[in-house]
Amino acid sequence: MSTGASDALTSVNADLVRMTRLVGSAMNRATQALLDADLSLAEGVIASDAQVDTLSSTIEDSCFDFVRLRQPSPSELRGVIGAVRIAASLERMGDLAEHIAKQARMRYPREVVPQELRATFAMMGAVAEEIVSKTGAVIATRDVSLAADIARHDSEMDRMHRELFTIVLSPGWVHGVEAAIDITLLSRYYERYADHAVSVTRRVVTIVTGEPYTGVTLDG
Amino acid sequence: MSTGASDALTSVNADLVRMTRLVGSAMNRATQALLDADLSLAEGVIASDAQVDTLSSTIEDSCFDFVRLRQPSPSELRGVIGAVRIAASLERMGDLAEHIAKQARMRYPREVVPQELRATFAMMGAVAEEIVSKTGAVIATRDVSLAADIARHDSEMDRMHRELFTIVLSPGWVHGVEAAIDITLLSRYYERYADHAVSVTRRVVTIVTGEPYTGVTLDG
Repeated sequence: MSTGASDALTSVNADLVRMTRLVGSAMNRATQALLDADLSLAEGVIASDAQVDTLSSTIEDSCFDFVRLRQPSPSELRGVIGAVRIAASLERMGDLAEHIAKQARMRYPREVVPQELRATFAMMGAVAEEIVSKTGAVIATRDVSLAADIARHDSEMDRMHRELFTIVLSPGWVHGVEAAIDITLLSRYYERYADHAVSVTRRVVTIVTGEPYTGVTLDG
Repeated sequence: MSTGASDALTSVNADLVRMTRLVGSAMNRATQALLDADLSLAEGVIASDAQVDTLSSTIEDSCFDFVRLRQPSPSELRGVIGAVRIAASLERMGDLAEHIAKQARMRYPREVVPQELRATFAMMGAVAEEIVSKTGAVIATRDVSLAADIARHDSEMDRMHRELFTIVLSPGWVHGVEAAIDITLLSRYYERYADHAVSVTRRVVTIVTGEPYTGVTLDG
């Protein structure tokens, strides 16, 4: 591998890490906007998603140029194809943060999350933050030992997602159908966000180990 | 472009078209399983999703080999990177059909869709069929004039999605919170399916026209 080749892929990797930061920040701000019914914060998340899309497109262009200008080694090529798929997943994570912000905006000035569920959503936000920050670390360091941690966070997110289902369906639910649907959709956005992070991590494992991709089943 | 190169990309394209057929068939069967509360049909959809994932992985391998063994032209390379992203979208469409089948299985032997909404879900299934079949045609023929048709089907799907929201939130809704959530999630799966088809079509347009990718915003 020439130094030039190595530099080009390092820069793609740095852009992927930047994407994890952007979608992590978007998710944090979206959670805050949701919990505080903060319209301008929500608007900010929605406006900033374009940055994520642009960066994804930049990454694809870099991958394109890299392959076009060089004869990449098999391992570099695995990295390039992986980067295209990882950028797609991160782009989707940005969209999910945007959906949460849009939900906050749609119900403004009302609060979407009833008092008794605020702690759960705050925790989902915290788990999302943890998971995306570790996903960034996996991309940056290729240290796939973090994969187990990320899977654990994902299970925690799934558990909260199921718990919220149970709550909105319980006889004690007093907030009506609209709130139940809002909570279900929001909860699903957090759960999908974590799923995409897991999928990104599996991709990095594929790139690092060179094992063939086995078709991670994702949730929509 | 050597004939060998052209053949290899033709075969990738044929595999993408095969994927549209598989995820089209999965969606049809899922809709039928949902409307008929047909457990074995639902199980069949769930079992067959592995085929979609395998084909996606085969397409990536072919793209990998293609680039590794040849010095692709810029236009071929656009096709390769596009194929990787298209396979990802089609894989997700298969997952969405699987989710619908899982919802039918989870509620079996009860019917998920109340009588008065059966026609809407049958129509969503029909629109999904139309849209995926045209998406397959766009991939097969590179005839991007179908893109406008596909966008129209997508708008029709969005309209039904919004209509279902209005119905489950209306004072006349007598089926309770669980059914409202089921309908909302199912409706969202159809709407996402159509969104992914639109995204695939835009990708093909990108490949054909060579215009830079402008970041199609997708819904999660």
